[in-house]
Amino acid sequence: MAPKKPNKVKARVPRGFIDRTPEDLRAQDAMLAVIREVYERYGFEPVETPMFEYTDALGKFLPDSDRPNEGVFSLQDDDEEWLSLRYDLTAPLARYVAENFENLPKPYRSYRAGYVFRNEKPGPGRFRQFMQFDADIVGAPNVSADAEMAMMMADTMEALGIKRGDYVIRVNNRKVLDGVLDAIGLEGQAERRLTVLRAIDKLDKFGVAGVRELLGKGRLDESGDFTKGAELDEGQILRLEKLYSVQEEGRKDFFLFMNAAELLQDDSVFGEPTETMGDVAGANVWANPRFLDIILEEFLDSPAVVAGLEELKNISAFVRAAGYGTKRIRIDTSVVRGLEYYTGPVFEAELLFDVTNDKGEVVRFGSVGGGGRYDGLVARFMSQPVPATGFSIGVSRLQTALKNLGRLGTAARPGPVVVTVMDRDRLADYQRLTTMLRNGLNAPGQPVVPVEMFQGNPKQFGKQLQYADRRNSPCVVIQGGDEKAAGKVQVKDLVLGKEMSEGISDNAEWREARAGQEVVDEAELVDAVRRILARQASERLKQD
Amino acid sequence: MAPKKPNKVKARVPRGFIDRTPEDLRAQDAMLAVIREVYERYGFEPVETPMFEYTDALGKFLPDSDRPNEGVFSLQDDDEEWLSLRYDLTAPLARYVAENFENLPKPYRSYRAGYVFRNEKPGPGRFRQFMQFDADIVGAPNVSADAEMAMMMADTMEALGIKRGDYVIRVNNRKVLDGVLDAIGLEGQAERRLTVLRAIDKLDKFGVAGVRELLGKGRLDESGDFTKGAELDEGQILRLEKLYSVQEEGRKDFFLFMNAAELLQDDSVFGEPTETMGDVAGANVWANPRFLDIILEEFLDSPAVVAGLEELKNISAFVRAAGYGTKRIRIDTSVVRGLEYYTGPVFEAELLFDVTNDKGEVVRFGSVGGGGRYDGLVARFMSQPVPATGFSIGVSRLQTALKNLGRLGTAARPGPVVVTVMDRDRLADYQRLTTMLRNGLNAPGQPVVPVEMFQGNPKQFGKQLQYADRRNSPCVVIQGGDEKAAGKVQVKDLVLGKEMSEGISDNAEWREARAGQEVVDEAELVDAVRRILARQASERLKQD
Repeated sequence: MAPKKPNKVKARVPRGFIDRTPEDLRAQDAMLAVIREVYERYGFEPVETPMFEYTDALGKFLPDSDRPNEGVFSLQDDDEEWLSLRYDLTAPLARYVAENFENLPKPYRSYRAGYVFRNEKPGPGRFRQFMQFDADIVGAPNVSADAEMAMMMADTMEALGIKRGDYVIRVNNRKVLDGVLDAIGLEGQAERRLTVLRAIDKLDKFGVAGVRELLGKGRLDESGDFTKGAELDEGQILRLEKLYSVQEEGRKDFFLFMNAAELLQDDSVFGEPTETMGDVAGANVWANPRFLDIILEEFLDSPAVVAGLEELKNISAFVRAAGYGTKRIRIDTSVVRGLEYYTGPVFEAELLFDVTNDKGEVVRFGSVGGGGRYDGLVARFMSQPVPATGFSIGVSRLQTALKNLGRLGTAARPGPVVVTVMDRDRLADYQRLTTMLRNGLNAPGQPVVPVEMFQGNPKQFGKQLQYADRRNSPCVVIQGGDEKAAGKVQVKDLVLGKEMSEGISDNAEWREARAGQEVVDEAELVDAVRRILARQASERLKQD
Repeated sequence: MAPKKPNKVKARVPRGFIDRTPEDLRAQDAMLAVIREVYERYGFEPVETPMFEYTDALGKFLPDSDRPNEGVFSLQDDDEEWLSLRYDLTAPLARYVAENFENLPKPYRSYRAGYVFRNEKPGPGRFRQFMQFDADIVGAPNVSADAEMAMMMADTMEALGIKRGDYVIRVNNRKVLDGVLDAIGLEGQAERRLTVLRAIDKLDKFGVAGVRELLGKGRLDESGDFTKGAELDEGQILRLEKLYSVQEEGRKDFFLFMNAAELLQDDSVFGEPTETMGDVAGANVWANPRFLDIILEEFLDSPAVVAGLEELKNISAFVRAAGYGTKRIRIDTSVVRGLEYYTGPVFEAELLFDVTNDKGEVVRFGSVGGGGRYDGLVARFMSQPVPATGFSIGVSRLQTALKNLGRLGTAARPGPVVVTVMDRDRLADYQRLTTMLRNGLNAPGQPVVPVEMFQGNPKQFGKQLQYADRRNSPCVVIQGGDEKAAGKVQVKDLVLGKEMSEGISDNAEWREARAGQEVVDEAELVDAVRRILARQASERLKQD
């Protein structure tokens, strides 16, 4: 039975998916460990749900999607039941809590990092599998829990090394947004409301004037593309703008770039706020941001807006009492967070520094996560209301941000000590030397020293040295027949070798110097390698 | 627009999938860290591929499946391309290496842990999503690489705390098995070969005599179920048995429980083998296991068997030279590992201690992982041969094993310090105390001390204490209005409270004693809690 030669299959990672390198994975691990530690300080515990949920249990809550039925990977299993891959970590948590309600402590604080999937057209920085890191409190009716989520996010940013001032946690309330939309006559007009929310979401990008176009007839951008507007009339637009624009004289152009909430709250515009643990009396100075009252006066006829603003004032009071100033957490009534399932406070973690995007434009880095209160999500499964609030970090995006800030521990590690193969009849010898080194150089709880025998084709010795070089090896071990007979072994310091070769131009001279090479008794091999590693480590320290 | 009340959705985890608890996840993390460290000592680096592959790239190599087209979760994406969820970590690695061949060092050593998926009927301990932890060397033609994989698996078992003698790495060679099947006349009879391999795979369970029935007409088990046999004749069976049974006089009943390979190699039957780093001369004592020669004599006419046995002798020599005796790594010509894609040496990590299974039977724990050489898998994508060998650990199964051995660090952690809410108008106060404690008790690089404010409905104070108890809290913080006015705060040691309550039967007496309770100045709160945590930690140490 001669096997027929098959057509070669093309090796390609599926579109919208990526393979991940050692540096990438190690940086992610370090980042996740930091986030996990912050979440645990707040009393959150890990939990993990599977990648799949029954499609009906997952619901149609895909955020930011205009097509709630699409965007999800679904299939029928062996039992002909419809399963979907999770598109976020919140819907599965709601299912988990409902299923295990009696056995969980309430409030139930949990966190989880995991991949989620979107069956969408991929784009730059937009993948079909990506990681989120969520924390949620289920069974917490008061906005003090929302305040805590915002503080935890601020702590997370700082624990990751993002400086105060380089990030801010913005807090808004869906009740305020919804109430204002009702108040300007959009009650029941789901599609139009969406258009309005999407317009407000562009404040950052287009400023108040640009958004005004999107709220009205529409907006023509520089490339000539026209975006149809929400067709609000002048009166509606003016009233809506009370939400995010305070029209003070002489400050108009400033407001194009910074919305009123920021201006009125952020002392850094006028002077540095002190971020100390205030006493309650001191905290009250912050407890009642002026601009919320300005908005309140405009919408006294809307119970939803009044209630929502009251909640925002409370959140402000709670975070200020705990010592968090406006540099860390800001009430910002322009925040539109997703388009689905939030019922109260919403938050957004925004990075404020500039980066150059794919098109070569300098832009603010922007959002790395967000969340909010979703009092209805667990209740889908239950006969009782179950209030909940949570936050989700976009892990890859945050990792990109940290890379930009030089905050990822991506220092090149030393590669493996490589035991080379001079004589292929003595593989057992080399295996013995390798194991001796590996056992001698490693101990539990100490940094790993990788040791390996060259496992490729040993014919060309030069390829073995190339391999060692490629792997960033600190040194190679060589044992020829004569050395073996004499009970000796050669160790070659590749770093020292490189340094010395830079000072030696002549090839013959180089061989003479046998740069970085020494011959030792087999019994001294471990010590000889240890000395080389120690020398290189101290050199690296000097260079830092 | 009154929202219509939807029918409640049933909350249930999909069949064959599981939710994972904090203890489970923490134990897994600790276990993965240990495995990772061992792999890194051998020079392996992490890599990660996505959950999906194009269906054609994944191939039809599902191991242990009679239905190679089934058992895989597949779907069409937005672009109508067929995608499949990976069913193991080897096929995606092959795709990755082929796609990035020029940019990878060769040999390429990599490891990865990740979930894999099988669309199969779930059963006890059989899930549709489970984790594997693989290591592979691609571009390594010599069996010295296979020897290294076996040694690394042995190191992994010991690093996890599995004692020498409680596990063994068995090594066989697919060339030997295939050659013997050819030699007894089964060339080209794919289905019958499978039946034979499956029968041999049952040696552990049924012994030589039971397997003989499966090789012949078939076997009737105690429950009355009949398994059809491979219909080999007496001559074929006798010849096949040379592979795994050496018929020495007076030892027949012993062989029913232990196969010949074990008997002849494992000194522990006759006396304890010394597991020291042997010199090469010493190693040669082990290099040529006698029973391999006995088999060799029987199959001298089969070049495949001769070549395969030679490779096994070499592997034996390599691992012995490195100091690994038969208690750790054993050549065992009865090992059948999977049914697909292996082309040379195969290995199996087996745990030798007994456990009670779901049916109440005492059985040997068995396999927790395995692997082998797959020289054809990368070549599916390439015009050149790319030899490779690898190993896969079944993470959940290994975790179950470690749990059985008491080797999982599952000690209950102290829960969060809980700041209770006496007066719901002073939430800001409690938030401030909480943050003060959280910041005061935690520092980077030190064990986390979780601190949280009670975020449930604060109406019934008793529920807050119940919650703290439920969360295994070390202490709660209480501040009523009088205390607030006096700048004081109460701390209640819940562990001491429990201890003392066991000695006090009278309720009034109990209140009098105010067991484990103290009142301190607000400024001393952090120190007071720190004292309580220190006392409890030293008590725990005493109890260990």
